[in-house]
Amino acid sequence: MAGEKGKVLLAYSGGLDTSCILAWLIEEGYEVMAYVADVGQEEDFESIRAKALQVGASKDLKEEFVKELIFPAIQANAIYESVYLLGTSLARPVIARRQIEIAAKEGCQYVSHGCTGKGNDQVRFELAYYALNPEIEVIAPWRLPVFFNRFAGRKDLLAFAAEKGIPVVQTAAKPWSTDENLFHISYEAGILEDPNVTPPKDMWKLTVDPEEAPNTPERITITFEKGIPVKVVNHNDNTEVTEPVELFTYLNTIARRNGIGRIDIVESRFIGVKSRGCYETPGGTILRTAHKDLEGLTVDGALRAQRDASITVPYSRCLYNGLYFSPECEFINNSIAFSQRNVTGDVKLKLYKGNTIIEGRVARGDGEKLYNMQESSMDEQGGYNPEDADGFIKIHSIRLKKWTPAKN
Amino acid sequence: MAGEKGKVLLAYSGGLDTSCILAWLIEEGYEVMAYVADVGQEEDFESIRAKALQVGASKDLKEEFVKELIFPAIQANAIYESVYLLGTSLARPVIARRQIEIAAKEGCQYVSHGCTGKGNDQVRFELAYYALNPEIEVIAPWRLPVFFNRFAGRKDLLAFAAEKGIPVVQTAAKPWSTDENLFHISYEAGILEDPNVTPPKDMWKLTVDPEEAPNTPERITITFEKGIPVKVVNHNDNTEVTEPVELFTYLNTIARRNGIGRIDIVESRFIGVKSRGCYETPGGTILRTAHKDLEGLTVDGALRAQRDASITVPYSRCLYNGLYFSPECEFINNSIAFSQRNVTGDVKLKLYKGNTIIEGRVARGDGEKLYNMQESSMDEQGGYNPEDADGFIKIHSIRLKKWTPAKN
Amino acid sequence: MAGEKGKVLLAYSGGLDTSCILAWLIEEGYEVMAYVADVGQEEDFESIRAKALQVGASKDLKEEFVKELIFPAIQANAIYESVYLLGTSLARPVIARRQIEIAAKEGCQYVSHGCTGKGNDQVRFELAYYALNPEIEVIAPWRLPVFFNRFAGRKDLLAFAAEKGIPVVQTAAKPWSTDENLFHISYEAGILEDPNVTPPKDMWKLTVDPEEAPNTPERITITFEKGIPVKVVNHNDNTEVTEPVELFTYLNTIARRNGIGRIDIVESRFIGVKSRGCYETPGGTILRTAHKDLEGLTVDGALRAQRDASITVPYSRCLYNGLYFSPECEFINNSIAFSQRNVTGDVKLKLYKGNTIIEGRVARGDGEKLYNMQESSMDEQGGYNPEDADGFIKIHSIRLKKWTPAKN
Amino acid sequence: MAGEKGKVLLAYSGGLDTSCILAWLIEEGYEVMAYVADVGQEEDFESIRAKALQVGASKDLKEEFVKELIFPAIQANAIYESVYLLGTSLARPVIARRQIEIAAKEGCQYVSHGCTGKGNDQVRFELAYYALNPEIEVIAPWRLPVFFNRFAGRKDLLAFAAEKGIPVVQTAAKPWSTDENLFHISYEAGILEDPNVTPPKDMWKLTVDPEEAPNTPERITITFEKGIPVKVVNHNDNTEVTEPVELFTYLNTIARRNGIGRIDIVESRFIGVKSRGCYETPGGTILRTAHKDLEGLTVDGALRAQRDASITVPYSRCLYNGLYFSPECEFINNSIAFSQRNVTGDVKLKLYKGNTIIEGRVARGDGEKLYNMQESSMDEQGGYNPEDADGFIKIHSIRLKKWTPAKN
Repeated sequence: MAGEKGKVLLAYSGGLDTSCILAWLIEEGYEVMAYVADVGQEEDFESIRAKALQVGASKDLKEEFVKELIFPAIQANAIYESVYLLGTSLARPVIARRQIEIAAKEGCQYVSHGCTGKGNDQVRFELAYYALNPEIEVIAPWRLPVFFNRFAGRKDLLAFAAEKGIPVVQTAAKPWSTDENLFHISYEAGILEDPNVTPPKDMWKLTVDPEEAPNTPERITITFEKGIPVKVVNHNDNTEVTEPVELFTYLNTIARRNGIGRIDIVESRFIGVKSRGCYETPGGTILRTAHKDLEGLTVDGALRAQRDASITVPYSRCLYNGLYFSPECEFINNSIAFSQRNVTGDVKLKLYKGNTIIEGRVARGDGEKLYNMQESSMDEQGGYNPEDADGFIKIHSIRLKKWTPAKN
Repeated sequence: MAGEKGKVLLAYSGGLDTSCILAWLIEEGYEVMAYVADVGQEEDFESIRAKALQVGASKDLKEEFVKELIFPAIQANAIYESVYLLGTSLARPVIARRQIEIAAKEGCQYVSHGCTGKGNDQVRFELAYYALNPEIEVIAPWRLPVFFNRFAGRKDLLAFAAEKGIPVVQTAAKPWSTDENLFHISYEAGILEDPNVTPPKDMWKLTVDPEEAPNTPERITITFEKGIPVKVVNHNDNTEVTEPVELFTYLNTIARRNGIGRIDIVESRFIGVKSRGCYETPGGTILRTAHKDLEGLTVDGALRAQRDASITVPYSRCLYNGLYFSPECEFINNSIAFSQRNVTGDVKLKLYKGNTIIEGRVARGDGEKLYNMQESSMDEQGGYNPEDADGFIKIHSIRLKKWTPAKN
Repeated sequence: MAGEKGKVLLAYSGGLDTSCILAWLIEEGYEVMAYVADVGQEEDFESIRAKALQVGASKDLKEEFVKELIFPAIQANAIYESVYLLGTSLARPVIARRQIEIAAKEGCQYVSHGCTGKGNDQVRFELAYYALNPEIEVIAPWRLPVFFNRFAGRKDLLAFAAEKGIPVVQTAAKPWSTDENLFHISYEAGILEDPNVTPPKDMWKLTVDPEEAPNTPERITITFEKGIPVKVVNHNDNTEVTEPVELFTYLNTIARRNGIGRIDIVESRFIGVKSRGCYETPGGTILRTAHKDLEGLTVDGALRAQRDASITVPYSRCLYNGLYFSPECEFINNSIAFSQRNVTGDVKLKLYKGNTIIEGRVARGDGEKLYNMQESSMDEQGGYNPEDADGFIKIHSIRLKKWTPAKN
Repeated sequence: MAGEKGKVLLAYSGGLDTSCILAWLIEEGYEVMAYVADVGQEEDFESIRAKALQVGASKDLKEEFVKELIFPAIQANAIYESVYLLGTSLARPVIARRQIEIAAKEGCQYVSHGCTGKGNDQVRFELAYYALNPEIEVIAPWRLPVFFNRFAGRKDLLAFAAEKGIPVVQTAAKPWSTDENLFHISYEAGILEDPNVTPPKDMWKLTVDPEEAPNTPERITITFEKGIPVKVVNHNDNTEVTEPVELFTYLNTIARRNGIGRIDIVESRFIGVKSRGCYETPGGTILRTAHKDLEGLTVDGALRAQRDASITVPYSRCLYNGLYFSPECEFINNSIAFSQRNVTGDVKLKLYKGNTIIEGRVARGDGEKLYNMQESSMDEQGGYNPEDADGFIKIHSIRLKKWTPAKN
């Protein structure tokens, strides 16, 4: 009987996979509700809603995504394996949290998703689910033999879609898969699995090729307050934006047209498999560069070193591994804002064919005290007594004078 | 009487400062020997030698600089405050080490240098001196009131030079100071002391402006063996280089013409003062990008995280703070090579107007095993059992289910 | 003329050194005010006050010492070089902070102290002074040649005291020096400078020798709320204490009679010199053992590892090096309380001849959820599915299977 | 048919569990070979051998256990969650490695063990198996429903033993389980699962109760060479031992009779469950105390901090989590010896009723230079210029003067 197995809230993307999962769950005897999360991916949500047999919930999560995840990640200079800006990882917590909330409200015992059984996203979704509701049950079809054996290839999914009357947009399938949100788009799998294959020019969706970007640079100023971007001014056309989502979207726009934010890496997935990913993070790349620069001016060196060790590195790992909702990540999260007390000021940037070039910065508030032109000056003393450095060096040398280098 | 105070070995650059220091030391009663270190700075060494009243020693340190400092720094992905590639810091150990060796051979009780009393370099030179010879005495004129009060401005130095017959090249003084070696050039002080001033276009010496770089990209392949670059092939013109100094110099050449390696930052000096620096590190920027990329393919994720924490961060700090010759840096240095056992393979790069773009990579040797196309594939199982991920996630969720988020 | 050089607030201990410094400062032309800080050292404060020519301020800092320094150090499990519980370091911030406050109120341009020029305490006092009042001027007589050359030995100080009519208690000088406060007493210098000399039995002042402690153990229970000890019950005699200072003093009392808290180490001073110290930290030793134990029960393993790295280690180093008042220590301090949200419960202890033996513990509040008898049980399943461990292990083994051990 | 499923090498302890597993595997159609590892547990190996239907291999691993695992752990000061000395974790690598070697030699496709499905040991054995032989297949009966459902209680195992004629020593089962080796014994499960239950006096097997230990202390000297203990002298009776296994066994003997090495903790298992364990690590406790003390005298402070962060912490976690055979642990392991270059000298200790008391220490070799009595002395200058400390403090204060404390 339909629905006798209980009620499932499925994270639904509108694509072939989750459409088939939706139909399959019904076939299996579940009552299914589709949940569409709008985290800024460029999609036709009307058409997604039309496609789902029933869409219980379509949620605009962009504002919480920007304010609760993207901006703290910028404040923390979050980065994985020195390269990846964590775009997919950042969206998962807001998507999963809302899914668990709706599941509770709608009386769903189950949540489900369309992630593969080899990737990071299954882990990110499910650890979030379990942390937020220890009683929830998860259905991960791509890990169930009854599902993955039945749908061994795209052909099987298409046949099932046809059988169930699921509308499939007949675009030729791309030879890679993508995940998109306001922060970034990822490309992986398919032809990209050979790490020596150069991504084809037409793969990159968000940004223009640096070679095709304008020959004239754009100059902007980003204003931060306590590490949060609060204003962007474009000096080429005097555009000015301040609202979080609007500001971030605008940074995406100008980064995209200047070819900024592409990367291509091989990364270490949480499950121990290496994988190749290409990413475009246009606005995020500009913001991260600007934020790091302003920190140089406004954050004490020892504090910065402490913050890098105790926030940047473990926070990035938590995000990547799906441990955003965890005691350790909550603890880390709790100190991000404190580390940003003085990160207030402006950064001037030039955007040009893939480059984000710093052209100057100015601090405001308490952070202003840290940099003192007279004192830094090599040309004047500025209250500094050079003889002090003598004692400083001599004391530091005491232990070095006792060092016996290893014999080779 | 001339020389009655003892013998000094002065690190001599040929510039106004060290020329005056040389004459002043003689005036003060020291016997002075000038030591000119060639670490690849683009200077007329003949003219330097001519200028010094006596140059006891002119040493070509380029090969040891590349092999002992630059390449290990690349292997370690060394970077200071997430931006600075440590160009000046890297040259100091080879310069100081040779100075101490020559001082011993020539019977000098003193060594001297022309560093200011506010900077990092005085610390780097002197900690190295003391570590390598605990008995050495250091004369740092810019920290001696008798010197710095007498030579309060450039005018005083010029007058003294005239008086002593020191030839001064009558180029207009640049409104900033520089330090150059094979790895980089730095610009600081003068007009750069205002961190909001954009560096003038004509300041940058090594690289062309990205806006003036060629419209056609250059494509190269860098081959690494155990993390050391051993071959560069330029696919545009089939140039191939393999010898360490030649290879590094060639990377500089192609990076320079493509506008690669400029940065502009405010950094935290060891002595606690913030300072603004602009740097060009052309070849080093390419090498670092390529090396990090190959590590993505060939180094286990947990090993990489361990290496980042135990080598990259503290090694960079040791280098910056002048603690290369120290028990802790020797200990760190000792594990760099071990971490690179598998970093063997090729990285394909596109150089274009300031961008270093990865176009593919391939591993060779043991590192090849880490990436497996079948296994990474989202489209096939490749020996991987998706059901295992179920247990993996469930076990990881055990502790998360016990977490009670903080009440706000 | 008396006092024409300005007004000095001297941290005054009542001992020979600071008494002579007081008289010497007056002789030098300063107006001097003595400041006596009571941080729980066992001294006759009446007699100290009598001795000082003028004592401007005698302050009881015990409560702020316990609440602001000792308890956070317990929460953080602070320890230096795996052994030293930081007793002296912990008192310095409260002493220096009050000294700066009084100096401001009393219009003193100078502060002064009696620390030697080789130790940690000069650094701890002065970095605190400068951080709290960047304009303050410091007089450190033991670093001034005019002072240390004049008073080269104890004899010179005694002669000066006689000349100035300073009352000196004619106890034979101990062949070591001490620093005492509510948390601990330290012994160093003198005969202890030979690290192979066993401290004489009569040196130890606070604790009885374990060999002479009672043959019958004492059993106590310590109750913590959010990592702060809030109650101690002695089961031998039903004593119960709850007020912070009283509670800590009581722990000292019972630890002292049971011979708990002695250590003897060689440590690395901030200034790069190794030094041998003996310490008694009676109550602190019990508290630290009990607190760590309760954390075992109530703090998530990953959070604990994160806290150890980001608080315990750097916080201890900040305290030791006198950097309590610093941007990085403030940042660290800010997260201590958050890490202790669940550290609520009781720890049962047996005290016996130097040993602090855990006999059981119980959690209360949210921390209770972390330990589940059924789940931990090897004898029952308790909701745990052993098959999950299979996937957990298999996934963790994926990257290990690709590892090629180094050839020897 | 007997053995048709293939050949299994079972890690066999002689206890009820592995005896039944042995018989059950045969019943299931495997050819089974038992493997008995002697890592110093106090057992009647003759009787174990007699009990096994067939014992293919009985191996004395004590020497490699001491030299390859115990001594490096002492050198690294390995400790888990600040308390646990890792006794069980340390033995697993030598046991698993030999098991994989024998399995290869004997042509076994399978290895098996008797670990429960909730513990750390299953992980430690199996990650080692897979790392050392990626092709090996593991049979973990306690994770197989067909096994764990059939043998749900001890009664079922006893009945099966009777049916199969397995000799069972009819001692009353202890209400806890143990794991023993040369380094330690562990107690967990059973009545210990309530963390508030004090372990019964008769549980502790290796050490006497401190209350019953001799009233007269024993005094010993331990000599280290490069961090390895090479000699123990007992000053009470002039015993002297030098051979690794003999030396370690002797330390166990004297620690046991003096009541040294008991702990009782709640720890965080790798699988995310908290568990209570009691441990006795007699000789290891003395060695760790002595080694840390000698490091205080002979290891530079900055090196020690670097070593603590880069070896002690991650090495301990690797050992605990069963990642000894992993790229990251191999990397860490590789630097242990280098950190110990100067840890050569003697430590004098007093052992008394549970206490290990340092009474002095002396360095030999290069490490001797680090401690200099004149220089440490507060009473004489010893080449140290107190005025240098002035500059040291002033320079360190520069950045502190710019700090604005957070407003509360």
